[in-house]
Amino acid sequence: MSNRYAVILAAGQGTRMKSKLYKVLHPVCGKPMVEHVLEQVKLAEMNEIVTVVGHGAELVQAQLGDRSEFVLQAEQLGTAHAVMQAKDRLQNKDGITLVVCGDTPLITAETMSSLIQHHEEQQAKATILTAHQEKPDGYGRIIRDENGLVKRIVEHKDANDTERSVKEVNTGTYCFDNRALFEALEKVSNDNVQGEYYLPDVIEILQTEGETIGAFQTALASETLGVNDRVALSQAEELMRARINEKHMRNGVSFIDSANTYISNEAVIGRDTVIYPGTVITGKTTIGEDCVVGPNSEFKDSTIGDRTNIKQSVVHDSAVGSDVNIGPFAHIRPQSSIGDEVKIGNFVEIKKATFGKASKASHLSYIGDAEVGANVNIGCGSITVNYDGKKKHLTTIEDNVFIGCNSNLVAPVKIGKDAYVAAGSTITKDVPGEALSIARARQENKEGYAGKIHSKN
Amino acid sequence: MSNRYAVILAAGQGTRMKSKLYKVLHPVCGKPMVEHVLEQVKLAEMNEIVTVVGHGAELVQAQLGDRSEFVLQAEQLGTAHAVMQAKDRLQNKDGITLVVCGDTPLITAETMSSLIQHHEEQQAKATILTAHQEKPDGYGRIIRDENGLVKRIVEHKDANDTERSVKEVNTGTYCFDNRALFEALEKVSNDNVQGEYYLPDVIEILQTEGETIGAFQTALASETLGVNDRVALSQAEELMRARINEKHMRNGVSFIDSANTYISNEAVIGRDTVIYPGTVITGKTTIGEDCVVGPNSEFKDSTIGDRTNIKQSVVHDSAVGSDVNIGPFAHIRPQSSIGDEVKIGNFVEIKKATFGKASKASHLSYIGDAEVGANVNIGCGSITVNYDGKKKHLTTIEDNVFIGCNSNLVAPVKIGKDAYVAAGSTITKDVPGEALSIARARQENKEGYAGKIHSKN
Amino acid sequence: MSNRYAVILAAGQGTRMKSKLYKVLHPVCGKPMVEHVLEQVKLAEMNEIVTVVGHGAELVQAQLGDRSEFVLQAEQLGTAHAVMQAKDRLQNKDGITLVVCGDTPLITAETMSSLIQHHEEQQAKATILTAHQEKPDGYGRIIRDENGLVKRIVEHKDANDTERSVKEVNTGTYCFDNRALFEALEKVSNDNVQGEYYLPDVIEILQTEGETIGAFQTALASETLGVNDRVALSQAEELMRARINEKHMRNGVSFIDSANTYISNEAVIGRDTVIYPGTVITGKTTIGEDCVVGPNSEFKDSTIGDRTNIKQSVVHDSAVGSDVNIGPFAHIRPQSSIGDEVKIGNFVEIKKATFGKASKASHLSYIGDAEVGANVNIGCGSITVNYDGKKKHLTTIEDNVFIGCNSNLVAPVKIGKDAYVAAGSTITKDVPGEALSIARARQENKEGYAGKIHSKN
Repeated sequence: MSNRYAVILAAGQGTRMKSKLYKVLHPVCGKPMVEHVLEQVKLAEMNEIVTVVGHGAELVQAQLGDRSEFVLQAEQLGTAHAVMQAKDRLQNKDGITLVVCGDTPLITAETMSSLIQHHEEQQAKATILTAHQEKPDGYGRIIRDENGLVKRIVEHKDANDTERSVKEVNTGTYCFDNRALFEALEKVSNDNVQGEYYLPDVIEILQTEGETIGAFQTALASETLGVNDRVALSQAEELMRARINEKHMRNGVSFIDSANTYISNEAVIGRDTVIYPGTVITGKTTIGEDCVVGPNSEFKDSTIGDRTNIKQSVVHDSAVGSDVNIGPFAHIRPQSSIGDEVKIGNFVEIKKATFGKASKASHLSYIGDAEVGANVNIGCGSITVNYDGKKKHLTTIEDNVFIGCNSNLVAPVKIGKDAYVAAGSTITKDVPGEALSIARARQENKEGYAGKIHSKN
Repeated sequence: MSNRYAVILAAGQGTRMKSKLYKVLHPVCGKPMVEHVLEQVKLAEMNEIVTVVGHGAELVQAQLGDRSEFVLQAEQLGTAHAVMQAKDRLQNKDGITLVVCGDTPLITAETMSSLIQHHEEQQAKATILTAHQEKPDGYGRIIRDENGLVKRIVEHKDANDTERSVKEVNTGTYCFDNRALFEALEKVSNDNVQGEYYLPDVIEILQTEGETIGAFQTALASETLGVNDRVALSQAEELMRARINEKHMRNGVSFIDSANTYISNEAVIGRDTVIYPGTVITGKTTIGEDCVVGPNSEFKDSTIGDRTNIKQSVVHDSAVGSDVNIGPFAHIRPQSSIGDEVKIGNFVEIKKATFGKASKASHLSYIGDAEVGANVNIGCGSITVNYDGKKKHLTTIEDNVFIGCNSNLVAPVKIGKDAYVAAGSTITKDVPGEALSIARARQENKEGYAGKIHSKN
Repeated sequence: MSNRYAVILAAGQGTRMKSKLYKVLHPVCGKPMVEHVLEQVKLAEMNEIVTVVGHGAELVQAQLGDRSEFVLQAEQLGTAHAVMQAKDRLQNKDGITLVVCGDTPLITAETMSSLIQHHEEQQAKATILTAHQEKPDGYGRIIRDENGLVKRIVEHKDANDTERSVKEVNTGTYCFDNRALFEALEKVSNDNVQGEYYLPDVIEILQTEGETIGAFQTALASETLGVNDRVALSQAEELMRARINEKHMRNGVSFIDSANTYISNEAVIGRDTVIYPGTVITGKTTIGEDCVVGPNSEFKDSTIGDRTNIKQSVVHDSAVGSDVNIGPFAHIRPQSSIGDEVKIGNFVEIKKATFGKASKASHLSYIGDAEVGANVNIGCGSITVNYDGKKKHLTTIEDNVFIGCNSNLVAPVKIGKDAYVAAGSTITKDVPGEALSIARARQENKEGYAGKIHSKN
């Protein structure tokens, strides 16, 4: 196999995005566009990858790190000029160079490999990745000769009627014989209205020199979508979402509505799990088998066991066991660990807390900075008072404890095994195991007074 | 009218579903696929229905119950073999036999009846339900003669170029003269690569014997979608959802976004009710007229009156009256009954409770195992303490009671008519009618101490 | 430029809507259909606008107010009869009259102007707005002569096969020479099956008289969608939603899923704000730059600053500052003002309250009828007891106050600057600045009693 090089064009600002963020850093399904491109380029097994950066160069480099080399295009003088910046890195090497834009987030390694394979089979000096466009207005048309080789690329504005009827268009992705590429680049001029150096001119130069120019038409035109504004960004998001969700469906996950379910490419979901609509799963989230999640739930960088149901809830940076019920309307904040068979009910917030097996916080509670044992029942409205205005303190609740409703556990505090806290108590001192702790005023009924207290209770 | 029989093929495992659940039991819009098929077959008025079961036989039988007879296909040896299992039930009867797959959940009784009617008009021995497929790759093509009758079905792999250009395809649904069917089935061989007995071979056998073979092309190709994997399952769900929602729209219900609203076929919704997106309505839910429901709400097996607004909330197995306001972020759990003009506000959970007319629980409350009268005002944060760690107890709140904020009502307990419970009280004993009940500590202001208490409050 | 007049047809009941609401008052993206039409007509700069009302005349007039004149069509005798009602207002004036239906909410001023411009260029007496319909069944076909002028409109039922193959259809919007219109209207008869006076007959009359009839085919067929039932209403909503969201995207707003995001046409959203799906933004809401809003959030007539994050929450008729974090599951009710850098956390309700800079109510609180200073920390479960059963009272919390968890602040009450309220206290009297206020019972631990109290705590 020939050596393979890749040049990723990632220098543009993307004026039409109307954004402070540089174009290739705009995310698609949670990941910057250029990151998608780099991942696929790496899967296509390149010997060397050079990313051409310009606008936002430092941020793009920070994003891609040491997975690519970088060259700077200080001025934006056209695509040929951009590739030219890689000259010092690549020019005297034998092999094939793929040129791909950092704003085509949907292109896959399979398509890159097919393009290169076609290039090799045709023994071409350059091969264009093309696609069928039912409405080709605005695209460069591919004019082939009788052998299927490329005669030329005609820009829309320069095309005659016959040429305009051609629906095979240039996608902007190419592969080249590396030496031929850099030799031809030297000959590209900027003698045009914009005063820019255009990469398609390399095709014309090579063709004029009698070299073979191939064209590989992908069957998956949507892969070649280039993103220049947020409307296209939204289309890319929709296509990527469909691709990711189809992968999960083929793995045995059921979706009530794939179009309305938002999953990162990194998420792992077990068989026979059902996902209800309006669910957003981001980052490196893992969900087990036979779960029911959603509707309208959000997961971020979390691990969920098997047979767990999570409805109308939010789970971030936490671990949830198997056979757990969460929600509706619960919020599991970072650094929480929810054991098997636990129930976290409605309007409950958990933060940096561990829950042992089969414990319950069923309603209207806040349990933060806490270690909760097994078989604990936390009554409705109970709160760990973990903050005194200066510092956070720990609450420890041992196994089998019963916390009555609307209790305050003022941390640092420990409730011993099998203890019982009466409803409505504010607990400021430790409670020994098996003790009953109570802190409340005696009830007084003032007969006939109800009518009199309507000014101030 | 001839006798009509139906054979439902429901024996397959559905390997490509990658599921523990047998294929025909996968739900579409909340109901197993085979259940949809059976319902439509019954609407088409059959004298006898035989369902062929195999994988998951017991579960499929349990699903369909006594609405069908069942025969077991112990080994999966092809579709002809499957139909053959119905021989003892059907073979010596006069009439027409419809053969339909249990994995085509969208097919309707109207289409089945049209197929049978066409069969009778043509005096055919067999009639194939066909559909136009713009991309027919992979489907068996229907080759018709000059009279529009079927010459043969050609499988895609066996088709020549002319045959492949045919876009009329076999949907896998047929009707037959019953006696002809079982006679021909005896002649089907398994002399093919897979070693299976194929039902289309019956068509070829009858055609060879000079019998008339008809084809009825449905205008509704989407009805014939067969579900073999979860991608197709998701398409079926989308199509069924659109069908159900269109029915509601034609009945006078407004949808902000039909594509993003999930309603069971059993739900009944009144005129001029508006449904916001992200709403899931399952089971036998009834919603009255002039309601506004959603966004992002969930209803299960519940009854809602007229002019009621329910937003960002969950209602299960409960009855809600007219002119009620619920939500956002409320949760009505099973066995609740919410009277007319009631308000259930944000972060309120109701469980197994009745609310009389015009009562209010506006914020952050849990009312469980309770009987609440009319014109009751339950203050913010109030809780029925219904569980003592062993048993659930009842709270009774009579008419016109005012419950102050953050109160605990420790059940069993009764608050008499017109009584007033002061904010922050834990009530453990009954409160007589018209009494003021108070249970709280006296406030002490320690001047200048605020700066000193930042270790432990 | 000629004088321009517009006649808006808004008299129909809309039987197929199955609604108590008159057809043209049904909303699309939050605004009645006829309101959309009037707005666009006004943008097209008319000298005079006459709306023909009938069913629900008073409500339609109330909706449009003094932006239009009104004439009453007491009986619904057809579209020509409807336009005829404007005779007294318009008949003796020179100029061009646009006739547009009040149930075509998607038509734009640009299209109206292009129609009128084409009319003037052709020196026509009447010009029909036409559109290409791939499936023209049911529509009136436009039959043009060799010069591209209109020979006639043929209704579907009267069309021969050649005519039926025409895909250019009548959209029901026209412009006319005003005098020619009213002269021809006098000649329209109701000698047809329905006994109605049809506006297309005016075209035939003028054509017969040798006048020039033009046709302007819009490239945007979807703009001409007429809404006669709720299925079409739902399509109009979808198209309008896409149009509004595209406008925001072109302005620099990112959508995760445009199809599932519901924004009013009046909303203003800053650059680099990202909107997650399931979000509903209604009324005159303004959102700043660099915000993240949604998923599943709702905004109504509110103003949001820059760099603010609002998740899974509801904000109505309020102002929210910059660098604020709200949600998930928070509810900001009307007349609230949330300062910069504030945090409103989960299960918190704010009503008619102001929050100073950097204050926090992080969990499970209700703050209503309150003035909260800067740097205030409101502990979990704290409540302003603003209602005594008769009246609402004000709570004042000055700067730097710390409110302990599960506290009740019984209004009217004031907590002075730098004061500290201990957790679990019910505060009924003012707390001086820098004071510690406490109101709770002493904790008692009864050792070994936990096992004994399982009947009543």
